[in-house]
Parts: sequence; C-alpha cells; structure tokens
Amino acid sequence: MAGLFITFEGGDGSGKSTQAGLLAQWLTEQGRTVVRTREPGGSDVGVEIRNLVLHHRGHIDPRSEALLYAADRAHHIATVVRPALERGDVVIQDRYFDSSVAYQGAGRVLDAKEIRDLSLWATESLLPDVTVLLDLDENVARTRLEAADKPFDRLENEKAEFHSRVRAGFLALAKAEPKRFLVLDATQPIDELAQAIRSRVSHELS
Amino acid sequence: MAGLFITFEGGDGSGKSTQAGLLAQWLTEQGRTVVRTREPGGSDVGVEIRNLVLHHRGHIDPRSEALLYAADRAHHIATVVRPALERGDVVIQDRYFDSSVAYQGAGRVLDAKEIRDLSLWATESLLPDVTVLLDLDENVARTRLEAADKPFDRLENEKAEFHSRVRAGFLALAKAEPKRFLVLDATQPIDELAQAIRSRVSHELS
Repeated sequence: MAGLFITFEGGDGSGKSTQAGLLAQWLTEQGRTVVRTREPGGSDVGVEIRNLVLHHRGHIDPRSEALLYAADRAHHIATVVRPALERGDVVIQDRYFDSSVAYQGAGRVLDAKEIRDLSLWATESLLPDVTVLLDLDENVARTRLEAADKPFDRLENEKAEFHSRVRAGFLALAKAEPKRFLVLDATQPIDELAQAIRSRVSHELS
Repeated sequence: MAGLFITFEGGDGSGKSTQAGLLAQWLTEQGRTVVRTREPGGSDVGVEIRNLVLHHRGHIDPRSEALLYAADRAHHIATVVRPALERGDVVIQDRYFDSSVAYQGAGRVLDAKEIRDLSLWATESLLPDVTVLLDLDENVARTRLEAADKPFDRLENEKAEFHSRVRAGFLALAKAEPKRFLVLDATQPIDELAQAIRSRVSHELS
C-alpha cells in the first residue's frame, strides 16, 4: 500500500478530534490527499451500528457489543480505509481497534487478546502505521467533558473507575508496541502537541 | 442445564416455521414450557440488527455481515436462550449458527471454520441438543416461495447457484455431526415430518 494510516486514541475529552483536524489541515497544505474518518460510525452501515450501540435503551450483552464494533470496523476498513490507502491517500482516523481492546478488554469482562483477534479477523489484520495516544488523567478528562455541557452518552456515563482501567489499557498497548505508538501528555498546549505529531508523521512520510 | 435446545435449519421455504410451530404446540400439550424464538432478530437488539442486515440498501462487506449475525446471536443466546434453558424450558429456534456456516461459509467467500469459531465465541460454545434439517431441493424451494407471492428480501434474491451451495453446506454439517442432526426430506407430508420430529424429541426428553 502506498498510503499512510494514522490513528488517534485516548479517552473522551483528550483532544483527539482537535489534533486529528490540525494534522489533516497541515498535511493538506503539504499537498497530500487526506481522508478523515472515525470508528464507530465511519461508513453508512457504521452510522446505523453506532446509533444502535451508543443509544440503545437497556442492556447489550458484552460479546454482542464487541461484535457490533467489529462489524462496523470490517465494513469501514473494507469500503473506506483500504481503498484510500490503495490510492495513496493519508487516512487519519479517530479510534481503531486499540479502543476496542482498551474499552472492551481492559474495561469490561472480556479477554483483551480475544477482542484484538476479533478486530484482526474483521480487518484482515490491517495495522496503523502510526497511532497517536493522547494520554489524559481520567479526572481531568471528566472535568473537560462536564465543562463542554453536552449530554453524556452511555459510555461516558460509566464510572470513573472504568475510565481509569481504560487509560491503563491504552498505556499497556503503547508499551507493547512502542514503534507504532506515539504517546503524548494531552495536558500539553495544543500547538506543542500538534508539532510533536507533525514531526512523527513527517518522519514516516520521508 | 435442565432444558432442551432444539434448532430448525434449512433453506427458505423448507417449512421450518410450520414444523417448529407444530412441535411447540405438541410439547405444550405435554405440559412442557416452550420458548419459540429465531435468529436473526430474536431479541430487541436483534430486531434492529436483522433490519440492518436484511434491508440495508447497498453493499455490506461479507465479514461485517458475518459479525452482525454473530452480534445478534451473542445477545440472543445470553438474554433469551440461556435463561430459558436454565429455567428448564424447551427452546425451539428457527436458524442458529449452522445457518451462518451454510450461508456465509459455504455460500460466500468466507472460511466455514472461521464462521463457526465466530459463533462459538459469541455464544460461549452453546450447541443445540437436536438440530432438525429440513432438506429441500433449491428449485422446489424457489417454486414454493414464488407461489407465496411475497416480496423477496435481499438473501432470497441471490442466485439459484448460491442456494445450491447452501444446501450442500447444510448436508455437510449434518454428516459431520450425525448425533445432533435429524435430516428430513422436506417434500414429505407435513404430518409425517411432524411425527418424525416428535419421535426424536421424545427420545431426548425420556
């Protein structure tokens, strides 16, 4: 594949969308074609799945939830991401399978390796070239979200303890694959974070 | 588990619903508590997934489709089937993972063993006690469906060749697990089929 696949990971409120947007703008200015996307919900099928997972009233079995995210992922990678990479584009994506492993595996009752294997089956083992982890203390993240005064969805309403396990899950993933991950302290100023990300991406593109 | 788990398999138009209904009625008359259910769409989450899979306009990636069926299955087994079996009920279900293997594995591009493993992960390996396969030549099935004068859904519109591969897939599954499967020629009279099914189920309950 001629393109470059960059994913942004981290808890809600860590600044993923802001940084992904700044990176997309900078790459576009460099003359690259950029595809900005996200999971869940980065395709037509995915939007329906995302609505089902995030807004279903009542219990969803944990295995069922993991399989729904994997279904969204399979369709999204096959119909959006792989075609873009084959064209030589840069794909910048909010959340990928590291989120599933961190949220479902570390946060819930399911085995992290099984969740990872599920995603690898779904995507025929497509790994990102670079994964930016915006690491943020869960209490800071909570304060940021509350300040934004938006209604919380189901995942956001889970307990703080859950978010603490998610954060630990992300950090463990980054430690296991140091070459793929760029871990940044999300409390740094926006411009400094953007510069660190550009620097890493420039290295990949050169 | 104290209950009994019976699944009905076979192509569309093979008489699964008719025979499942007759068996449920007979068991109820014998004083058993029966739960009649189906996949896809046998739970609240499942109804939404079934609508998405069967009525989505446009392409769904094959892996995504397999994962959606598995998600429906995971929620359905965890919230409907296992609780019923634990209460000692008889569960009579239209379609289970054999359908996924036959339709997705034999009929499409995916590996049959991978599809089976996906379902086993989704259900924590819950196997039926009895699976009734109503075997029907695909041309006869097509004629029955056309006579019913209902609009065809997406799966029903697939080519006859596809249905031929599905039928071969079901028969191969039955051959591999002769103790679990009861294979019947679906062109037999309704009463004779019902009697053969009662006989086998009586044996399981005695």
